[in-house]
Amino acid sequence: MTERSRARSWWGWGWADAALSDAECRSYGALLPGTAADPITPPQVASLELPPSRIDPPASLASSFTAAPEARASHTYGKAYRDVVRALRGEMTTVPDLVATPRDEAEIISVLDWASDSGIAVVPYGGGSSVVGGVSCPRDDAPGVVSLDLVHLDRVLDLDTTSRAARIQAGALGPHLEDQLRPHGLTLRHFPQSFEFSSLGGWLATRAGGHYATVHTHIDDFVESMRVLTPAGISESWRLPGSGAGPSPDRLFLGSEGTLGVITEAWMRLQARPEFRRSTTVSFTDAASAFAAVRVIAQSGLSPANCRLLDPGEAALSGATSTGDWALVLGVESHDHPVEHDLARLVEIAHAHGGSGGSSGSTDTHTAASDQPARDRAAEAWRSSFLRMPYVRDGMARMGAIVETFETAITWDRLEALHDAMRVELAAVIEAVTGRPGLLNCRLTHVYPDGAAPYYTVIAAGRAGSEVEMWDDIKTASMEILTRHRATVTHHHAVGRDHRPGYDRQRPEPFAAALRAAKAALDPSGILNPGVLIS
Amino acid sequence: MTERSRARSWWGWGWADAALSDAECRSYGALLPGTAADPITPPQVASLELPPSRIDPPASLASSFTAAPEARASHTYGKAYRDVVRALRGEMTTVPDLVATPRDEAEIISVLDWASDSGIAVVPYGGGSSVVGGVSCPRDDAPGVVSLDLVHLDRVLDLDTTSRAARIQAGALGPHLEDQLRPHGLTLRHFPQSFEFSSLGGWLATRAGGHYATVHTHIDDFVESMRVLTPAGISESWRLPGSGAGPSPDRLFLGSEGTLGVITEAWMRLQARPEFRRSTTVSFTDAASAFAAVRVIAQSGLSPANCRLLDPGEAALSGATSTGDWALVLGVESHDHPVEHDLARLVEIAHAHGGSGGSSGSTDTHTAASDQPARDRAAEAWRSSFLRMPYVRDGMARMGAIVETFETAITWDRLEALHDAMRVELAAVIEAVTGRPGLLNCRLTHVYPDGAAPYYTVIAAGRAGSEVEMWDDIKTASMEILTRHRATVTHHHAVGRDHRPGYDRQRPEPFAAALRAAKAALDPSGILNPGVLIS
Repeated sequence: MTERSRARSWWGWGWADAALSDAECRSYGALLPGTAADPITPPQVASLELPPSRIDPPASLASSFTAAPEARASHTYGKAYRDVVRALRGEMTTVPDLVATPRDEAEIISVLDWASDSGIAVVPYGGGSSVVGGVSCPRDDAPGVVSLDLVHLDRVLDLDTTSRAARIQAGALGPHLEDQLRPHGLTLRHFPQSFEFSSLGGWLATRAGGHYATVHTHIDDFVESMRVLTPAGISESWRLPGSGAGPSPDRLFLGSEGTLGVITEAWMRLQARPEFRRSTTVSFTDAASAFAAVRVIAQSGLSPANCRLLDPGEAALSGATSTGDWALVLGVESHDHPVEHDLARLVEIAHAHGGSGGSSGSTDTHTAASDQPARDRAAEAWRSSFLRMPYVRDGMARMGAIVETFETAITWDRLEALHDAMRVELAAVIEAVTGRPGLLNCRLTHVYPDGAAPYYTVIAAGRAGSEVEMWDDIKTASMEILTRHRATVTHHHAVGRDHRPGYDRQRPEPFAAALRAAKAALDPSGILNPGVLIS
Repeated sequence: MTERSRARSWWGWGWADAALSDAECRSYGALLPGTAADPITPPQVASLELPPSRIDPPASLASSFTAAPEARASHTYGKAYRDVVRALRGEMTTVPDLVATPRDEAEIISVLDWASDSGIAVVPYGGGSSVVGGVSCPRDDAPGVVSLDLVHLDRVLDLDTTSRAARIQAGALGPHLEDQLRPHGLTLRHFPQSFEFSSLGGWLATRAGGHYATVHTHIDDFVESMRVLTPAGISESWRLPGSGAGPSPDRLFLGSEGTLGVITEAWMRLQARPEFRRSTTVSFTDAASAFAAVRVIAQSGLSPANCRLLDPGEAALSGATSTGDWALVLGVESHDHPVEHDLARLVEIAHAHGGSGGSSGSTDTHTAASDQPARDRAAEAWRSSFLRMPYVRDGMARMGAIVETFETAITWDRLEALHDAMRVELAAVIEAVTGRPGLLNCRLTHVYPDGAAPYYTVIAAGRAGSEVEMWDDIKTASMEILTRHRATVTHHHAVGRDHRPGYDRQRPEPFAAALRAAKAALDPSGILNPGVLIS
């Protein structure tokens, strides 16, 4: 079966045929006391009671619109835990009236013109992997809602091998994008967990976090120029390696989450495929030592490609280690030169701060001829588990478990206090809400000279029928803790509709006023993704 | 004489007592046929016919304002070539009516309120080193103009040694800022040519280029959070090492050049002082080889701190080499680990692309105990000449020479075409305008995986009394060439008033609309630096 013909799940993550079987669901459920005996069976689309579409597409564009139940159902939600549970329940409160799949920019402009004239909400849609309600517009917010799916804009249009950059259409999903770059020995090297089912445009609109644990942590820094269709006209920045000409135009659209315009193309900076790679795992017995080691590494200037710290629960869950220790997965890579000195120095720093184990190995992993280099075993186990995790999450959701994540970033001086507060206060909230202790695991996904990005996973047994409300209570408590510690409401999951309570407190009010004014200038009818970022 | 009591030049660069003597002016002038026999004598402030101040300060703030001729004269211009010549001629068309030196934020807010009520233009002023008309508001543009000098806001207020960050007031000039960080073993390490006479706030407002030739080329990346006083309220972002929560608030104010608010403080990311350093100089006989070597170095991931390519004229002028070759000055540094492997690989790449000379030396320069490490001789000669250059520029201006620079950035695929166009077309313009061939030197100041930032120096003999107009013709031609090649109008000199013709063509119109809307929201009376960036 080709990827093109393989069916996507309408209610959960990824490929429909990769979902956990009922038996697998039960065996995961058995690991978590308090979950159901049997999994919920996902409803068939035909059995959903979708509200009728309230609008008709313009006649001239009719062939690029559909009101088919399958399309509407699969564009109702992103892929947050809440989304999956609601879909499993058949609650389709944000089902769009129509799904548009424009074939080119001219059709997108026509859709925006038509929607602006009619006051119809337009929700740009790439891979649909939002975990913050970024693609789910409540029906009550507009007299009509169109999900604008960029699926047809999926090509690499231009390649500049000298400057190592490519002009890429925004609807290209990760694998298809990389497939088009690979013959040229180049890669965007942006590998979020959602890689298979998220798009370039989505990454840009949400300031996605990617492959690199240090320096170039977000997609932002790989943008050379962007092309954005706004209701007020086309904004296209020049291809520039750097510029100091006024505030950066691209930085206004990066993170705009579909509220200011539809990103259709970007010139992206590429990487040569790495030929030298090393990785290893160092263990720590306590959080303070591990945090200190990672901090000194982040400040060392060595800029490892991977620097992922897993707490004991996370390490066990992912299969990296099961010793009860913290695990620090370090990885270095280069297309240009051997990297054993760098890894040796990283391990030396880790050891100087109480780490044990790990080595720089005896020879470089030189993988010029292969995309599948030999890897450190713990790192490989972690990676494999990482990509499988969303399917497991869906299976556990079917068993009534609450399985969700949230992430943040905070400066080093305040990291331990935040982490302690989460371990104590949020754990207490989880127990109070669900009636049982839950799991609360932490990893640091990205690190900076001045701080780190902790990523928390919550796993708890929910009461059937109340899981979403229980998670909402936990999420509200987590946002309160983040706000009190002045940690960002999101490091790389975006704001969407779900993070508004935290975002509105974090965002400086004069900047909010500037953003609202920019929105009014670019989208005077207020049709683009209403409720996201800006009210 | 302490730095505090040492007098600044009102008409030219830096310290008044560091200006070239008449004899030195003559000896520089003698190098350039066609210049005057004797230097212009800079006028005394008392002899300037300054138009009377049109406004009175509010009574409650009177002690923080002055209309003294010395203050008004020294706040009339930045430090562009044009500015110096106009000052030497006594043409004071942008003299402010008043100079305000607020003691704290409360006074700044009062000034903004008063100016907003009265429609008086406020020009934020840091070190006054703008080379793009950024601090020079024409008197006709407003019924009154106030230069708002942040000289009293010059302290490091907080230091977080764990996260290596400091809260610094915007008016701190480079040396005073570094003096306050040095006892803690930390440095901002932002060393533009203007370092001694430019301020943190100015660097942020103009997206200044600094010490690092790669990766962190602009001040932007060292910003953790900013505090900006706008007429619509105080915008203060949270201290965060990274965030994906909507478009970055800081990125709107970075590059805003005083048009959206007055930057008063920022939390800045700091560096440990380097203990390991190496540098060397590699020669190339032609541009194509040199560009190719620098490109591969920029794409190598080695990220040298210095990677400065000088063309033969620039190399000779700066004393780096006088062999007629291109000179590539490479420097690597670390506080954490020896760097000889990195330099050796850089030299290897340079040699593989036709470079000769240079070495990684036999031992690391380990300079823990000193701020004055041993340096490569060519690099040191270049650096010394670099800091002296503005004084020489002023001396040559007094002899009737045209001496000015402009800089840009462009992707690698188009660099050679741009460079050829400058060498041919702009050289022809210089000759046509001045009646003689001039010097047109080039260096690459900052390099990126996808492109480079060429920096051009023009030296030509002007006709007395017409130098500014001659330079304007050359500048106009240079902007035309940049626009045609879609190279940015400025890499790190900002837009100000002088770069508007190029900037307005480069900036996407929808972004311009968004910026105007943001300006209207933050500065509804339009008092902040009118004419800069936005009309």
